Amino acid sequence: MQELEERIRTEGTVKPGNVLKVDAFLNHQCDVALFDQMGKAWAEHFAGKRVDKILTIEASGIGIACVAARHFGNVPIVFAKKAQSINLDGDQYVTTVYSFTKQREFPVIVSKKFLNEGEHVLLIDDFLANGKALRGLIDICDHAGATVAGIGIAVEKGFQGGGDQLRADGFDVDSLAIVESMDASTGEIVFRH
Amino acid sequence: MQELEERIRTEGTVKPGNVLKVDAFLNHQCDVALFDQMGKAWAEHFAGKRVDKILTIEASGIGIACVAARHFGNVPIVFAKKAQSINLDGDQYVTTVYSFTKQREFPVIVSKKFLNEGEHVLLIDDFLANGKALRGLIDICDHAGATVAGIGIAVEKGFQGGGDQLRADGFDVDSLAIVESMDASTGEIVFRH
Repeated sequence: MQELEERIRTEGTVKPGNVLKVDAFLNHQCDVALFDQMGKAWAEHFAGKRVDKILTIEASGIGIACVAARHFGNVPIVFAKKAQSINLDGDQYVTTVYSFTKQREFPVIVSKKFLNEGEHVLLIDDFLANGKALRGLIDICDHAGATVAGIGIAVEKGFQGGGDQLRADGFDVDSLAIVESMDASTGEIVFRH
Repeated sequence: MQELEERIRTEGTVKPGNVLKVDAFLNHQCDVALFDQMGKAWAEHFAGKRVDKILTIEASGIGIACVAARHFGNVPIVFAKKAQSINLDGDQYVTTVYSFTKQREFPVIVSKKFLNEGEHVLLIDDFLANGKALRGLIDICDHAGATVAGIGIAVEKGFQGGGDQLRADGFDVDSLAIVESMDASTGEIVFRH
């Protein structure tokens, strides 16, 4: 998606440690007109697929998913919650995700009420790097007996391999911008096309 | 807002300890068509006020603010981040908020880049109870030299007093549903009109 690549190029910053900061428009300050265009692009890519629900994960995925939902007939959004400790009362799907950013594991939970057997679920998130968070959401869908209809991502860090592994596993991953390489010393960002 | 009150009455549940669960449509599963109506209602209430930016707080405020922004000319959304520990590098506004739900203090941060002197900021959040989170956002606006244009809330727990204190301090608080009392044993919810 050309508009997103341009925004990353002009407003994104590359930091040491494979960090790409896009907090000016994606995940701290949010450009909702851009989110709307992203939703339109995903709707075009996933046209013809059944989408009963959109599943995302707090916090940065929520705004993107909620704005994008308009292009999917206002289906319900469910956002998985990250928790440090949880009461396992049997009413929640729980999985564990390792965060490289935070250098620790954390539980990801979704109430069983809001994810049902047989539902076709579109996963949406702001970033895809190693794919750990998405694997957690897929795991939760599996436990619920729901089908992953597809995966819509704003920015994929292609060089970290998570996206290609998901594609190899048969998932339909639509990343609107795929960073093939980036250089913290020069600030250069190369996109995959 | 009648539609919101009806949803609270039919889908909300009252739990012991002054807990009102509205996770079926507001803060775990999200009904974006309802969020859009909420945005329209706030836009009518705050019509004529200058709104340069919407400020909310992760996680539940984000989806609501992002959908509502359409009714405010797609102004930028900024969501304050909750963090347990932070690096104070001078580029962030930081304040501390006490959470009764979590029984602990946590820092709330906004990057200085995204909140500027002279800006008129609309605060939006899903819940208003004692008002601690909003006081944190107001504190951050004060530090930035920004003006609080108003406060848009989905559900105010009127009996906890935070909303009335904010009104007494001169803030224009528009809560779309104000719960005057609720009873965990009967499930009864009484709204203020």
